[in-house]
Amino acid sequence: MSVTFSDIQQAARRIEGKVVTTPLLEVPLLNRAVGCRLLAKAECLQLTGSFKARGAFNNLLQLTPEQKTKGVVAFSSGNHAQGVAYAAQSLGVPAVIIMPKTAPALKISNTRAYGAEVALYDPETESREKIGEEISKSRGLTLIKPYDAEFTIAGQGTAGLEIVAQCKALGVTPDHVVVPCGGGGLSAGISIAVKETFPSTQMHIAEPELFNDGLRSLESGKREFNTHKGGTLCDALMSDSLGVLNFPILQEKRVTGFAIRDEEALKAVAVAARYFKLALEPGGAAALAATLFKLQPKNKTVVVVLSGGNTDPAIQADAIRQFSDIIAV
Amino acid sequence: MSVTFSDIQQAARRIEGKVVTTPLLEVPLLNRAVGCRLLAKAECLQLTGSFKARGAFNNLLQLTPEQKTKGVVAFSSGNHAQGVAYAAQSLGVPAVIIMPKTAPALKISNTRAYGAEVALYDPETESREKIGEEISKSRGLTLIKPYDAEFTIAGQGTAGLEIVAQCKALGVTPDHVVVPCGGGGLSAGISIAVKETFPSTQMHIAEPELFNDGLRSLESGKREFNTHKGGTLCDALMSDSLGVLNFPILQEKRVTGFAIRDEEALKAVAVAARYFKLALEPGGAAALAATLFKLQPKNKTVVVVLSGGNTDPAIQADAIRQFSDIIAV
Repeated sequence: MSVTFSDIQQAARRIEGKVVTTPLLEVPLLNRAVGCRLLAKAECLQLTGSFKARGAFNNLLQLTPEQKTKGVVAFSSGNHAQGVAYAAQSLGVPAVIIMPKTAPALKISNTRAYGAEVALYDPETESREKIGEEISKSRGLTLIKPYDAEFTIAGQGTAGLEIVAQCKALGVTPDHVVVPCGGGGLSAGISIAVKETFPSTQMHIAEPELFNDGLRSLESGKREFNTHKGGTLCDALMSDSLGVLNFPILQEKRVTGFAIRDEEALKAVAVAARYFKLALEPGGAAALAATLFKLQPKNKTVVVVLSGGNTDPAIQADAIRQFSDIIAV
Repeated sequence: MSVTFSDIQQAARRIEGKVVTTPLLEVPLLNRAVGCRLLAKAECLQLTGSFKARGAFNNLLQLTPEQKTKGVVAFSSGNHAQGVAYAAQSLGVPAVIIMPKTAPALKISNTRAYGAEVALYDPETESREKIGEEISKSRGLTLIKPYDAEFTIAGQGTAGLEIVAQCKALGVTPDHVVVPCGGGGLSAGISIAVKETFPSTQMHIAEPELFNDGLRSLESGKREFNTHKGGTLCDALMSDSLGVLNFPILQEKRVTGFAIRDEEALKAVAVAARYFKLALEPGGAAALAATLFKLQPKNKTVVVVLSGGNTDPAIQADAIRQFSDIIAV
């Protein structure tokens, strides 16, 4: 394996004090309404509003002094952007962030507010990977990859270490752990951490229907790609494919998963506001959507990762207004 | 003093494992935007969606076996109702909850879902205190008071113990602690806990303009009363007056405070969703509103208690849509 449990433990020690331990939340009324025990890992409460700060710090804290002086570059639809920009600013490292011009306005303005230089590109016609590599070479910047990198996977996996510790404190072994998936950084990292301690736990990814490459890859046994460049409100989960490193990790951990529709993600945003009192982005609610509307795990204990909350407010407000009664008591 | 620091410590031991430790959250972008360090005590993440579960368990765990068999009664606009109903159900105690018919529908349906018998009354023409005492006497139920009782104040004060421990872990002494205030259960309890450890910290209450009896009482030196029975979206903070026990505690701790308008509470709901990723009710956002729009504490460290998140979704959605840019970066 490219990333080991020990790598994640080291990452946790490295980033301690730079990020926060997020709570594992439980709402008795919701448990009763859905007939299972839901434990929500509230990564939207992580610094920068998503889990991405974990991987960003794990990368930036391992730069050489020369790399720190020259700076870093990252490409991202917004959450990795904010994570890297915040970590860079905290550590005094210059950062260039390449973002699609279609990214939520809030994610772009936040990234700029963290002091990063933001370069916008057209996702319909340009490749963010190519742009990132070009800027990286021409300006001597270190590329901080959003998912397909050992340090990134190990950093995101620290959320999995916390899940393990929090489940142990509750005295429970989860039957299922469900994680939103774009390129597979968070799901690969959490799978390594969780399966080390709870080998019987079934790991799942949740993807938007239009970006279901991960599910197709796990089924076909080779990396599958998406042809879409947009078309989902789950902007955080729009990647071309699983990462080269990420895919075999998910295979080895026997991960399965679910594709969800945007409307299901929006329903989960409303459920999260009503029951968990959390304000999520659609992609951040994908695992909750998959759990509520696909997995429907009667009498089981399920850890659901709520991965982020950076969204345009109108989308969140519409979801809360429209779907708050979708699961009633 | 009717309630001591030791009472709160005992309450914390008593209710341990029945309630959760809520996080103290911080958002670097918001700190920068407002020019101070805001530490948000997220009591909306407490079981039942508000701090009220703390006082409810501290009361119910001290009932005699006979009292437990006969059951309890409580009057509440909704958060105390849910706290008592949940604690009662957890401990196998029958509960009757007296709620105003004007309470948010979500609070009424949640209270029923916790297995309580709900009796609705008209707040314009009937007194909840009288109804509660009558039912209590006629059916032999133990009245669990929402704020004017030692066990209730000590229970809510456990949130203050957590604030103290969390501030110590961060190595900070807060300059200000701001707490939403109805009858003064939460603010009295937190004041005792915080001032014991941080005597230089200034405590503040935040009240709706139409229910500013606490501020008037602290100014005049005697308990002042409200004439309004409604008229604010901060339903959790509509009490006739500070409690008989609560008022002298707030006096002794030299508490001051702020009255806020409903629109300011709604703006704070939007700020909480955008930055803290929390879904609050207007009353639960009152202290954040007071901090942002009244205290405006440049270069200070402020603990803001976000006391609850049980609201009708349309109000929350409107606030998020309308005011999400009220504090921008």
